[in-house]
Amino acid sequence: MQHLIHSIGTVHSPFSQKFGIPRQPNLVPAAQVCIDLHPEFTADCVRGLADFDYIWVHFLFHDAISEGWAPLVRPPRLGGKQKRGVFATRTPHRPNHLGLSLLKLERIDSQNGVKLYCSGADLLDQTPVFDIKPYLPFVEAQPQAAASFAQHSELLTVLWQPEIQKSLLPAALCALIEQSIAQDPRPAYQNLPERVYKMRVANVEVHFQIVQHTATVLCVEKISSHT
Amino acid sequence: MQHLIHSIGTVHSPFSQKFGIPRQPNLVPAAQVCIDLHPEFTADCVRGLADFDYIWVHFLFHDAISEGWAPLVRPPRLGGKQKRGVFATRTPHRPNHLGLSLLKLERIDSQNGVKLYCSGADLLDQTPVFDIKPYLPFVEAQPQAAASFAQHSELLTVLWQPEIQKSLLPAALCALIEQSIAQDPRPAYQNLPERVYKMRVANVEVHFQIVQHTATVLCVEKISSHT
Repeated sequence: MQHLIHSIGTVHSPFSQKFGIPRQPNLVPAAQVCIDLHPEFTADCVRGLADFDYIWVHFLFHDAISEGWAPLVRPPRLGGKQKRGVFATRTPHRPNHLGLSLLKLERIDSQNGVKLYCSGADLLDQTPVFDIKPYLPFVEAQPQAAASFAQHSELLTVLWQPEIQKSLLPAALCALIEQSIAQDPRPAYQNLPERVYKMRVANVEVHFQIVQHTATVLCVEKISSHT
Repeated sequence: MQHLIHSIGTVHSPFSQKFGIPRQPNLVPAAQVCIDLHPEFTADCVRGLADFDYIWVHFLFHDAISEGWAPLVRPPRLGGKQKRGVFATRTPHRPNHLGLSLLKLERIDSQNGVKLYCSGADLLDQTPVFDIKPYLPFVEAQPQAAASFAQHSELLTVLWQPEIQKSLLPAALCALIEQSIAQDPRPAYQNLPERVYKMRVANVEVHFQIVQHTATVLCVEKISSHT
């Protein structure tokens, strides 16, 4: 059985590449995105949605489609060494490539088309969105649920090289950089203290190293375009 | 932007018609369903999934497609009198007709194709499934989240007419009938004490009336086929 779905909107996100994207939503509160609904979805379509704190976003892992999927994957949280079934993980490399994220709804702007501003996002820029639903805590909050390997992992300490004039950078950008790096974007099986990682976020490229549980930001370079 | 999705499995459910289906999952624990994966999705695809208590099921509101969708809907919880935007509700009549349910995973049988047995289901029989994902409480359990009108509503008391030989019915069927009726399947704006409602569930048709906060089961008739 097959079904053709059409995007209802597009994500505008500071994450223009996969490296550095939080592995789950809400780990990086500073990651703000805007979901821009297509013009046929008017302000009527979101009437009352602002009364909800969180929304479900159904989206396409558009960057993973060409890579297909496999029955078994190696979740980063398991050190990349153990295999789990594709339906026992949240990998983008899955049948149909459908993603699901719970995002904090910050505000809705319906002045000129409908725009949903959300925080805690783990979405790539230009992600197609297929549905928006309100979060229902009375059935969907199950804090005691067993969840195998998927637990919070320890955050890295993030230091800045003194040469970087951090005070000249926007505070929101610094928070986004720190929170993104703190959740350790390395492939889990990689431990190369000498390696300089480069992460593109918003309109900058950030260079950093990780030694033990400390990441050091080496430099922040402005890039002309982040798409 | 459009995207063609293919079902990965099919739901087998005691609910063969929309009337009587719980309005949200987990309200009727006795509602057991089996998700039968298509043969190309082998036991490897669900390796490790049994370590999770709950799963997300992405499905199609297949029975609602022909009815389309509208920007504004009248949620039953608001008495059917107030309008809300389609994206501020969980109505089946939505763009793309995609559904999302959190189900309790009871067990997995991989002996002869993969079958996922779940409880608390709100799914119609023959529902096509597009994805299965593990529930991650550390990001998806937000018990304090504001949620507008979508709260637990009061359950009805369910009585049985003494003529019904309840002891001859399977206990699981009685529980399913009682829990389904207790959550009040009537359209919210309807209050007709004289009306006899007929609900098909599993292989029976149940007749009942509702007066104030009490439902009375009048009779339970076996039907030859529930499809």
